[in-house]
Amino acid sequence: MSKLKGLGGERKKKVLAKLGEFGKAIVQDFERGIPPRLKIPSRGTSNIVYDERHRYYVLGPAYGIRSAASMTQVKKLAQTLCVADFCRQLVNSGKFATLREMYYTAEGWETGPFYDQEESNILVEDLEAIFGLKREDLGLMPEEDGAAVFGEIVLKEDNSVIDATKAGRGGYTIPPTIDEVEFVKCKAKRVIAIETMGMYHRFVQERAWKRFNALIVGLKGQAARATRRFIKRVNEELGLPVYLFTDGDPFGFHIAMVIISGSAKLAYINHELAVPDAKYIGVTASDITNYKLPTDKLRELDVARLKQLQKDPRYNTEFWQREIKKMIELGKKAEQQAFAKYGLEYVVKEYLPAKLREVEGEKFINP
Amino acid sequence: MSKLKGLGGERKKKVLAKLGEFGKAIVQDFERGIPPRLKIPSRGTSNIVYDERHRYYVLGPAYGIRSAASMTQVKKLAQTLCVADFCRQLVNSGKFATLREMYYTAEGWETGPFYDQEESNILVEDLEAIFGLKREDLGLMPEEDGAAVFGEIVLKEDNSVIDATKAGRGGYTIPPTIDEVEFVKCKAKRVIAIETMGMYHRFVQERAWKRFNALIVGLKGQAARATRRFIKRVNEELGLPVYLFTDGDPFGFHIAMVIISGSAKLAYINHELAVPDAKYIGVTASDITNYKLPTDKLRELDVARLKQLQKDPRYNTEFWQREIKKMIELGKKAEQQAFAKYGLEYVVKEYLPAKLREVEGEKFINP
Repeated sequence: MSKLKGLGGERKKKVLAKLGEFGKAIVQDFERGIPPRLKIPSRGTSNIVYDERHRYYVLGPAYGIRSAASMTQVKKLAQTLCVADFCRQLVNSGKFATLREMYYTAEGWETGPFYDQEESNILVEDLEAIFGLKREDLGLMPEEDGAAVFGEIVLKEDNSVIDATKAGRGGYTIPPTIDEVEFVKCKAKRVIAIETMGMYHRFVQERAWKRFNALIVGLKGQAARATRRFIKRVNEELGLPVYLFTDGDPFGFHIAMVIISGSAKLAYINHELAVPDAKYIGVTASDITNYKLPTDKLRELDVARLKQLQKDPRYNTEFWQREIKKMIELGKKAEQQAFAKYGLEYVVKEYLPAKLREVEGEKFINP
Repeated sequence: MSKLKGLGGERKKKVLAKLGEFGKAIVQDFERGIPPRLKIPSRGTSNIVYDERHRYYVLGPAYGIRSAASMTQVKKLAQTLCVADFCRQLVNSGKFATLREMYYTAEGWETGPFYDQEESNILVEDLEAIFGLKREDLGLMPEEDGAAVFGEIVLKEDNSVIDATKAGRGGYTIPPTIDEVEFVKCKAKRVIAIETMGMYHRFVQERAWKRFNALIVGLKGQAARATRRFIKRVNEELGLPVYLFTDGDPFGFHIAMVIISGSAKLAYINHELAVPDAKYIGVTASDITNYKLPTDKLRELDVARLKQLQKDPRYNTEFWQREIKKMIELGKKAEQQAFAKYGLEYVVKEYLPAKLREVEGEKFINP
């Protein structure tokens, strides 16, 4: 256990304990002559509920049974145990594997290879739902890295200390294993997460991170799991308010909303990912009019999507209902880079201070 | 000019000189009472030639004329000059803008807005072809960052010195402005570029960078322009041999080949991007048989693509012809993560040394 340290260490202990109990219960069943069975929280649509109190999607109480007594379920049960054992080995050794690697590794298991990767992925989701833990906590990492971060935060990974203003213009890259990273020091007072890397680099060039005491996060479109986890961690552990700056179109809105309230698909793990207090400071229908922004016409798909959002419980606030309605009426959308109409610096010098004053009120002092 | 320094400085001087001459020639034409005209190298298919000597695609001698004397061309000529002027301002101020930002900025130009971004992008390509310079040299940056790099190289960006073993597990991110980066120190002896981030993280975890004295580059699929430029620079300036490790399928082959011999589409700038001496160490049809790898069936699309590659001049070597033919006969493809069948470390402990011995021969000492 000498390798355990910091946050990563605490998490590891918790994970190993959960895996241990899980295995012990199976063994006990065998010892008592009872066929072991697993209770697996149902992830079907009917069991995904929007939790008004937490302000994100969660799983309801329904669950399914996987039993060794059933001829049709026993193989799946054995495979679930193999996956759990593979995870235990990973967590024990401090290593990480991709879902793809696990799928191929299974070629050597006693249960035989999976038919396709979808089959092995589902077992991982089963374990995540059973334990209420992310797959990353089980030693399984996503293929892709998370977002880029630029600003005054110092982090520790393994034995490296990283200053996110000195990791290069590209910034610090959020690793898939973000829960193993320790926050050493943070002078930043807020987080500004940005949809496109074009705008991220604009913010870095214009030194917005310094001017607004902010961690600038470049999302690269829809935020990766590691990015969402990073944002949640700085929000909860460091108490930084989070602002989301996206394009003014249904896809931009939803990039922000998935960070705020989580996705239905990941309802079983939103308690680790959702940031319900994050605020939208992206382009709105009102901005399009007020700033006379260059626009594109809404496509049919955009309108259909906006109409979906109107009915989505996550958008059930006065602000969102007003702005979505207005956008449909306007028939137009605008990108965050459209402010370049007024010069490259405008977005940082004019738009951002105005938006921050809106959300922070008196607290915000224009630098 | 006090801001100019290092490699970036030399480049800037060259770019400003070219832009200056370009503008002067236009002014002189006006002074002599001649309508100015631009010679623009043609980028049509018939003018793209595979250069056997350089081993990459180049433009042929054909060009088009854009003249102020033509009613249909004069607006485009004026727009070209506006783009050149915008670039001059960027280079002078040391700033960068995205193509998207330039498109929106044009709303304020005397020539009026562009119809769509395709229109302004083409003018940038015109200037690149006229000057033989990349858009990045003209202050225009791609939206996306380049690859991740892990290994013993120290770089300098602005006033930050970055050690690529200490930038975090995610590694050093190649910025869009890679030509402004200085190589301070490099202990690595070779470059291993990897298609997927899953395998990149495997290499970092297994300390392959240390074991093989290598810079590990995580390509994230088809390599970005900045990534290709980085690889070319470490190859030429530091003399490091380059090895490319991709999936064993037509898309993997082509990810490698675009790094080696450039793309036809970017023929006008391949002299800045192509790395003709880079070697393929990715999964081959022979590997599929020799290592008994888990495979997927070739889809119709894969077979069609392989047949295209057979006729492509870049694949006109004994090695590629043999391996492509063999893959079509096998009817199978395999991913780089398929080696996980033999355990997570196998790819680094067994496959890689075998491949490096193949390409480096006697020089390679197995660590």
